[in-house]
Amino acid sequence: MTFCEKKAVVLLSGGLDSTTTLAIALSEGFECHCLSFAYGQRHLNELEAARDIARSFHVKNHLILRLDIGHIGGSALTGAIDVPKQRNLLEIQTGIPVTYVPARNTIFLSCALAWAEALSAPHIFIGVNAIDYSGYPDCRPEFISAFEKMANLAVKAAVEGKMPILIRTPLIHMTKADIIRTGIRLGVDYSLTHSCYDPSPDGSACGQCDSCLLRLRGFEEAGIPDPIKYATL
Amino acid sequence: MTFCEKKAVVLLSGGLDSTTTLAIALSEGFECHCLSFAYGQRHLNELEAARDIARSFHVKNHLILRLDIGHIGGSALTGAIDVPKQRNLLEIQTGIPVTYVPARNTIFLSCALAWAEALSAPHIFIGVNAIDYSGYPDCRPEFISAFEKMANLAVKAAVEGKMPILIRTPLIHMTKADIIRTGIRLGVDYSLTHSCYDPSPDGSACGQCDSCLLRLRGFEEAGIPDPIKYATL
Repeated sequence: MTFCEKKAVVLLSGGLDSTTTLAIALSEGFECHCLSFAYGQRHLNELEAARDIARSFHVKNHLILRLDIGHIGGSALTGAIDVPKQRNLLEIQTGIPVTYVPARNTIFLSCALAWAEALSAPHIFIGVNAIDYSGYPDCRPEFISAFEKMANLAVKAAVEGKMPILIRTPLIHMTKADIIRTGIRLGVDYSLTHSCYDPSPDGSACGQCDSCLLRLRGFEEAGIPDPIKYATL
Repeated sequence: MTFCEKKAVVLLSGGLDSTTTLAIALSEGFECHCLSFAYGQRHLNELEAARDIARSFHVKNHLILRLDIGHIGGSALTGAIDVPKQRNLLEIQTGIPVTYVPARNTIFLSCALAWAEALSAPHIFIGVNAIDYSGYPDCRPEFISAFEKMANLAVKAAVEGKMPILIRTPLIHMTKADIIRTGIRLGVDYSLTHSCYDPSPDGSACGQCDSCLLRLRGFEEAGIPDPIKYATL
């Protein structure tokens, strides 16, 4: 396979941030190869959302990798710990919550790196955000920069000088409201996205976990109604 | 779980290097949690070897994670490309061969990092070697150092200052003969280890792939007979 400048692997969780990231990558003219993970998350609905979103954008392809990291434990998102509810913004943004999954973005980016090399795609897009985020250490710019440095020492194509690896984080300095406004401008259908950590069996969002609260506040600040269904609103 | 200085995750492939690394970690008094991967490798025998080795050392526990990275492609070890045979040492040590699996050590170390954090184990042992190796970029000291730096920015325990992550590579500057001598001194039973990239259906090593050739040369230089069965010798 030959080196192609405008080829990208896009990490797609099916949430608001990764969907907006995909829309941005496509608007910049990238051929997008979307990557999602079945990692034992309790909010499996996000994988269906990811499938629908990839289809709606007619992306080049969409790979769902199964990773058994749920067996590793240590998180409310994969284990038996309860997802915290109705925390205020100060609580959400102070400290690292129990929904943190150990090294999740490191593992996701590592798999994206493997696929990027196999596809000869120099760009890896990830929708991390250091403003309206849940306090996860692996969403910060210093982490991304260290990962990029490591990636360029890890893979054959980069080491042989054929293809540098670039980790692209278009949302990193945006507020949730900015992200939503950008997505709307690029035609994102947010009714397809899924953000809740603890959805009802019918797929409705709980409206009370950190992820729902950040999302709702973002839509409110953007002055746009959130099109998804909430169980409690 | 509390922070424990002498706790380690040890990446165990079932090969000669990782087994010797495990023996070294145990000899240094570490409580060892071994991690292996079912990643679509064609030499699945190595997983049985890893199981036998972990059992023979009575390690604390042994986790085999299933990772579907075989779907990513790009390697003779997981795909349809043939494993090269009977190359000479100059060929083996020049360039990066088709047995290279994109970002394999990055993915393995990332999963080890997740487990290390969940276990409160600050040490991660990996049997990479920069002397008698197959030319993979992710076996070099500069890669390991960049990974360690990234890891300490990635995980909650490190970022909160509770537990630094240390990537331990005791074999990195050893020759294959040195590794074998060290293992013998520590009581490693090399008849349990498996190195071949392309074993026969009965489990015999081919004796011709790069991994077999490096192993055979190591035993020869160490002046010790290799106890495993070869199909061609």
